[in-house]
Amino acid sequence: MAATALDATTLAAVDAVREDVARLHRELVRYGLVVWTGGNVSGRVPGADLFVIKPSGVDYDELTPERMIVCDLDGAVVPGTAGSEASPSSDTAAHAYVYRHMPEVGGVVHTHSTYATAWAARGEEIPCVLTAMADEFGGPIPVGPFAIIGDDSIGRGIVETLREHRSRAVLMQNHGPFTIGRTARDAVKAAVMVEDVARTVHLAREAGPLIPIAPTDIDRLHERYQHVYGQRPGTQQGDR
Amino acid sequence: MAATALDATTLAAVDAVREDVARLHRELVRYGLVVWTGGNVSGRVPGADLFVIKPSGVDYDELTPERMIVCDLDGAVVPGTAGSEASPSSDTAAHAYVYRHMPEVGGVVHTHSTYATAWAARGEEIPCVLTAMADEFGGPIPVGPFAIIGDDSIGRGIVETLREHRSRAVLMQNHGPFTIGRTARDAVKAAVMVEDVARTVHLAREAGPLIPIAPTDIDRLHERYQHVYGQRPGTQQGDR
Amino acid sequence: MAATALDATTLAAVDAVREDVARLHRELVRYGLVVWTGGNVSGRVPGADLFVIKPSGVDYDELTPERMIVCDLDGAVVPGTAGSEASPSSDTAAHAYVYRHMPEVGGVVHTHSTYATAWAARGEEIPCVLTAMADEFGGPIPVGPFAIIGDDSIGRGIVETLREHRSRAVLMQNHGPFTIGRTARDAVKAAVMVEDVARTVHLAREAGPLIPIAPTDIDRLHERYQHVYGQRPGTQQGDR
Amino acid sequence: MAATALDATTLAAVDAVREDVARLHRELVRYGLVVWTGGNVSGRVPGADLFVIKPSGVDYDELTPERMIVCDLDGAVVPGTAGSEASPSSDTAAHAYVYRHMPEVGGVVHTHSTYATAWAARGEEIPCVLTAMADEFGGPIPVGPFAIIGDDSIGRGIVETLREHRSRAVLMQNHGPFTIGRTARDAVKAAVMVEDVARTVHLAREAGPLIPIAPTDIDRLHERYQHVYGQRPGTQQGDR
Repeated sequence: MAATALDATTLAAVDAVREDVARLHRELVRYGLVVWTGGNVSGRVPGADLFVIKPSGVDYDELTPERMIVCDLDGAVVPGTAGSEASPSSDTAAHAYVYRHMPEVGGVVHTHSTYATAWAARGEEIPCVLTAMADEFGGPIPVGPFAIIGDDSIGRGIVETLREHRSRAVLMQNHGPFTIGRTARDAVKAAVMVEDVARTVHLAREAGPLIPIAPTDIDRLHERYQHVYGQRPGTQQGDR
Repeated sequence: MAATALDATTLAAVDAVREDVARLHRELVRYGLVVWTGGNVSGRVPGADLFVIKPSGVDYDELTPERMIVCDLDGAVVPGTAGSEASPSSDTAAHAYVYRHMPEVGGVVHTHSTYATAWAARGEEIPCVLTAMADEFGGPIPVGPFAIIGDDSIGRGIVETLREHRSRAVLMQNHGPFTIGRTARDAVKAAVMVEDVARTVHLAREAGPLIPIAPTDIDRLHERYQHVYGQRPGTQQGDR
Repeated sequence: MAATALDATTLAAVDAVREDVARLHRELVRYGLVVWTGGNVSGRVPGADLFVIKPSGVDYDELTPERMIVCDLDGAVVPGTAGSEASPSSDTAAHAYVYRHMPEVGGVVHTHSTYATAWAARGEEIPCVLTAMADEFGGPIPVGPFAIIGDDSIGRGIVETLREHRSRAVLMQNHGPFTIGRTARDAVKAAVMVEDVARTVHLAREAGPLIPIAPTDIDRLHERYQHVYGQRPGTQQGDR
Repeated sequence: MAATALDATTLAAVDAVREDVARLHRELVRYGLVVWTGGNVSGRVPGADLFVIKPSGVDYDELTPERMIVCDLDGAVVPGTAGSEASPSSDTAAHAYVYRHMPEVGGVVHTHSTYATAWAARGEEIPCVLTAMADEFGGPIPVGPFAIIGDDSIGRGIVETLREHRSRAVLMQNHGPFTIGRTARDAVKAAVMVEDVARTVHLAREAGPLIPIAPTDIDRLHERYQHVYGQRPGTQQGDR
């Protein structure tokens, strides 16, 4: 891939994903999931073995579509594309690993959002005690292994954990949440929702015992939410 | 109702409620009561067996009056009206149940606001230890039953709980708050206030024992607030 | 006073205070001290037995100078002045009592800000464990008595508590903070700072024992802050 | 220095730092690290024994470059420069002490940000249990001594504490965080990050035991982050 110029169809698809990924970073800011330049969104390019991700260390105010970076599925920057003179997010290898091993995934998000990261610092999964959590995640939010940046261990930890769960979010131990989705927007929604439930369940539990939701009720809620609701049930994950 | 076109008077009344309901959703965002597309406001159409509610899964930024959806009191979308090609909020059946069984109610709001939902996850009512809570709710905020979406059980739980209380807010167990009001604005105010008192009482209690307010003082505060204050005492619930 | 028209000098002074008080309400919103229409600021009119206060139940977005209400020191609205057709804040009697009994006070603020109100719900004073608190308040933030709206008992509780303290803030039990200042701006600053220290000390203490500051150090800090700092040491209370 | 006019090269350097320091104060507001006029940023003037700091008691909205104040390394205002008619931040002596004793430091920031100050009120260092903390600070955030404003004791406490640590942040006991950096922007980033980790670790620990990160892993993370990442590895400290 490295020296090959992209054809016009692929370039058009890349440009659409650039717009989408640049815009979605604003949602991380709006929901208070990130500080400074932390956190990153990526989106798979439909019909190509490519994804688009944020550059490293650039202020959120300056994240225009042209500054987004195109990578192949090994996480290597595609030379000659807009943005390719800069370094991609330091978490690019983890995103690439997910795209290589989970073909159904169209978007990946990573943040250090406060409450989700607090659960991660204890290595404790978030129990499913809210109907919105059953709807969205179909059960508890699982914890992934402690893994150090620099090889595939973060990506492998994400994939191995999420393959066994309905949850689209994993809390990487001592690190923070990673979320996946059919699209980049879905993955951002999961990042927003995992922080929301992490906060609510944290606060609920510090004041007394939680009431569990029966597993059969969790199943019913999740099933209904994934298949019934939203304006375009075939193309996005549930909404209310 | 389904195939009947609305007359001009009703259409004008519907349009006024559309404006009101669309605008009031912004208050949910302003006060941080909702994330993503969660949460919904509805308003009864004066002089008709109709209410107006938000569409499902639409961003708050895009909630224009024309996209609001008109439903009859069984929760069925009125065909041929603006917005009727989209799906109404997934909580429409609960709103409809309240309008059918509580004719004095002109507005209903549902959110998953953080602190109110935390009390709901423990199934614990919020004790009345603040003068503002006595003013606004006339006592503790009650808890409603665990109920699964899909039939009338949520609506029934709301109505059965609120009929026995002065409170205009109920915490549905493991789910979140529903509030009612004489108008949609009153119900939104109750949604804002229930989160505010849920937060303050949560924080107060985690640091030590609370001082109760005597029931006779709660009665005096509530009575005065509902009848004395505000610029238009006949038409809205108390303000300071 | 009731039927007497104000002379031109007094009217000019009133208009200046209207501008000031209207603008200062925005600070309550900016710092998250108020929700809906709760909270109020008033300012004494220099050279007259009058003060200016917010109307009851009006949205913060709509608080223009002309809608502020002029009251005499018994809390009665001055007829014929702009805004006099509306009702003043339901807390007007408490503000009036403070102006009558503390001639050095030029501004009064009341909010139900979250953390300060949480201490008030336990009837617990905030210990002085921060240098910023020593600077600003010269010691702990005291608690005032439980008092019901409707007579002078709130105003009396404020005055009797603050007369014995260097603090410009009092936590009225089960109710919330009232603050005073040489000017309305000073009182607003005290309202902002009391919430800030209430939050910091709450969080500090929930994680373990606090380190006290020696009384002599508190005295030195308070003395220095009140007399040395700020651009205009003669006219405002300390700043950093 | 006092009576000496600055040459054109120095004036140009001063003006660049004025722009930078004025603009960086907005980041303190954006991240909620300051209330009212609390908190201050300073930046060293390259090639001169000078630094630029905020005036005392001026609203953040009014902090233009011309109002920033130029001081020599003893903290004395340079007469005849723009802004010199006003008083510099009350924390100027502490900033000056750091610049005199740590020639590698190009920027200093002080805030009373909530969670960092809460740890300071207990005199407790923040343990390193987050990978982002290992990246950024290379270990725990240390506590500095209790010190009273008015002489060099605050500055000395900062320097003596930070000289022994990789951390660019110190929690001054009962007071709040001071941070340093190669540039003013680096010091502001450290101020943002110290509050972020103070909050996350506070919340994590209140719900149960934390999982430590092995010292060798902390070393690897810190080493990599300081040397590998960011668009301009030679000129700024790590970014993601």
